[in-house]
Amino acid sequence: MVSRLASTRSTLPILSHIQLSTDRGRLKLQATDLEIGIKTWIGAKVEKEGSVTVPGRLISEFVSMNTDKKLNLIIKDQTLNITSERFQANIKGTSSEEFPLIPQVKEESFISVPAKTLEEAIREVIIAVALDETRPALSGVYLKTEDSKLKMVATDSYRLAEKTIPLENKAATQKAGVIIPAKTMHELLRILGAIASEQVKIYLAQNQVQFNVDKNIELVSRLIEGTFPNYEQIIPTNYQTKISLEAEEFTNGLKVANLFARESANNIKIEIKTPGSLFIKAVAGQVGDNLSQISCQAEGNNTSVAFNAKFLLDALSVISSPKIDLEISGKLSPGVIRPADSKNYLYIIMPLRTEE
Amino acid sequence: MVSRLASTRSTLPILSHIQLSTDRGRLKLQATDLEIGIKTWIGAKVEKEGSVTVPGRLISEFVSMNTDKKLNLIIKDQTLNITSERFQANIKGTSSEEFPLIPQVKEESFISVPAKTLEEAIREVIIAVALDETRPALSGVYLKTEDSKLKMVATDSYRLAEKTIPLENKAATQKAGVIIPAKTMHELLRILGAIASEQVKIYLAQNQVQFNVDKNIELVSRLIEGTFPNYEQIIPTNYQTKISLEAEEFTNGLKVANLFARESANNIKIEIKTPGSLFIKAVAGQVGDNLSQISCQAEGNNTSVAFNAKFLLDALSVISSPKIDLEISGKLSPGVIRPADSKNYLYIIMPLRTEE
Repeated sequence: MVSRLASTRSTLPILSHIQLSTDRGRLKLQATDLEIGIKTWIGAKVEKEGSVTVPGRLISEFVSMNTDKKLNLIIKDQTLNITSERFQANIKGTSSEEFPLIPQVKEESFISVPAKTLEEAIREVIIAVALDETRPALSGVYLKTEDSKLKMVATDSYRLAEKTIPLENKAATQKAGVIIPAKTMHELLRILGAIASEQVKIYLAQNQVQFNVDKNIELVSRLIEGTFPNYEQIIPTNYQTKISLEAEEFTNGLKVANLFARESANNIKIEIKTPGSLFIKAVAGQVGDNLSQISCQAEGNNTSVAFNAKFLLDALSVISSPKIDLEISGKLSPGVIRPADSKNYLYIIMPLRTEE
Repeated sequence: MVSRLASTRSTLPILSHIQLSTDRGRLKLQATDLEIGIKTWIGAKVEKEGSVTVPGRLISEFVSMNTDKKLNLIIKDQTLNITSERFQANIKGTSSEEFPLIPQVKEESFISVPAKTLEEAIREVIIAVALDETRPALSGVYLKTEDSKLKMVATDSYRLAEKTIPLENKAATQKAGVIIPAKTMHELLRILGAIASEQVKIYLAQNQVQFNVDKNIELVSRLIEGTFPNYEQIIPTNYQTKISLEAEEFTNGLKVANLFARESANNIKIEIKTPGSLFIKAVAGQVGDNLSQISCQAEGNNTSVAFNAKFLLDALSVISSPKIDLEISGKLSPGVIRPADSKNYLYIIMPLRTEE
């Protein structure tokens, strides 16, 4: 759980280590990359208090390959001695005092969210986070509470994803909105995917956020400074054409079109000429062209608009609903994708300008 | 089947294409990298004869993503038009005449081997092929027939793998032994893994080998020139210590040891001090050390010998027998690994010299 954060690519060698220490009758494991810290506790019989830091990858692989049932750990001269029925190892470590202190956020007011709900929400919005860091405020996931709702939002200015999570209790947090680095969200996803957890508590401080996953895991991260765009104003309030589609068939049609469109910056065109069929067109001068026909139910105007196929596919890859709605308002207005079975998620995508 | 050989990394653009042509009421597909050629035939209703070459990756992905049942292919002006119920595509190609001719080996005398047997044999010997090309004769798999046996051998001079396949009929080939490039063997493995095939016929010519997989696939390859080492003389004829081991437990012990040994060129030491236990030792000055104990049945002398852990693991990864025998004749002699349940495979591994 912790050693994956202990990167061997860091310039500070100590950051490739994890810290093991006794803590009130349990063994505490920690790793940090100075921006994120993870702590976890496991049951142990402690005979004498102690602490050491050892290379994270080595101890993690040694323990996971060790098929014996019980491990004995002895720390001596900054070396960790691990023995079990069939395996013995001495792993050279460094003094625990050199290990960076991982901050602790005051566990006062918090937001509590079911682990599965949070995992799904992160997956649904993280696709829209900006990958470049030119606008730091866009390189993370925006989190804000509104009465008894938690909103998570991400945008790279070409598309925007917003998820609304209803909370059981009215949120009691001191801050209106915070931006959490994408890497922190990926680490949290990894933790939630690796263990069966029930509930996640989110604590906010001035510059930090802490996620407590059940009772044994804590993830602490810095926040991104800056102001998240006032995104609500760009959410379209109506549409000219609404298209209901099977997500799987639409995905398949887009993937086929993108074989051709990948030569032309993923530029594909969506056309409605009759209510029952959506056409996806891709033209790549060097390679050839493609036309896919998808059955749909369309209401409103006939339309023709160009999108980035990859951005449409990103949304389809995280929406679990078998049916989706695509709302279009002409060539120059953003399109909106919604799962047919929920009002809690929306994905806005800017159109591409074409010559025609 | 054929498009994977059509590499986009080739300097000749035509080699990233595959050729489609009508051939006596079927559709013939071909690709080549000039050293290897693959031909396959599929059923088709041919209305007019024709031929075209198109980018292999694009047509392969388009057809595999196309979920419609039936495809219509029309060749016009070197463009391939593919239509089906819901998808249409025009793929720009080049003239079929530019496509390199793939040679055909005279289908006269041949060796016939069950596909599964050949697939297993290739997997068992290809691990020992030399990866660098400084000695070309070692960069392929040596194939020779002896009465009613087919032998396949590979060595990189640090280890050697030999597989013997009993043949149903006495082989009638004109050549005593040939060396087949490792890449050809990997292509054949890929084909055998991708389709359920029964029988492979191997045809040999002066500079070429051809594998006919069932009736629809032909793989043609150049041979490597040069003389394969006279390896029989280095196969040990006896041993000082014979160790019987569970393959899985030995593998696990070696993998744990190699976590430490990877810092010191995979150098591990195997020790027998009592008949019931094998010890695996790894020492890495910077990192620490490790001692694993594996239960075994040993007969003969106590011993201590150093090997490359990765080379031992390579052999264990391809031997399907749950039990193996390890034969050792002191610090300076090669060790031999054999599956306990078969006399048809052996793997020889040179010891490492150590200071002690």
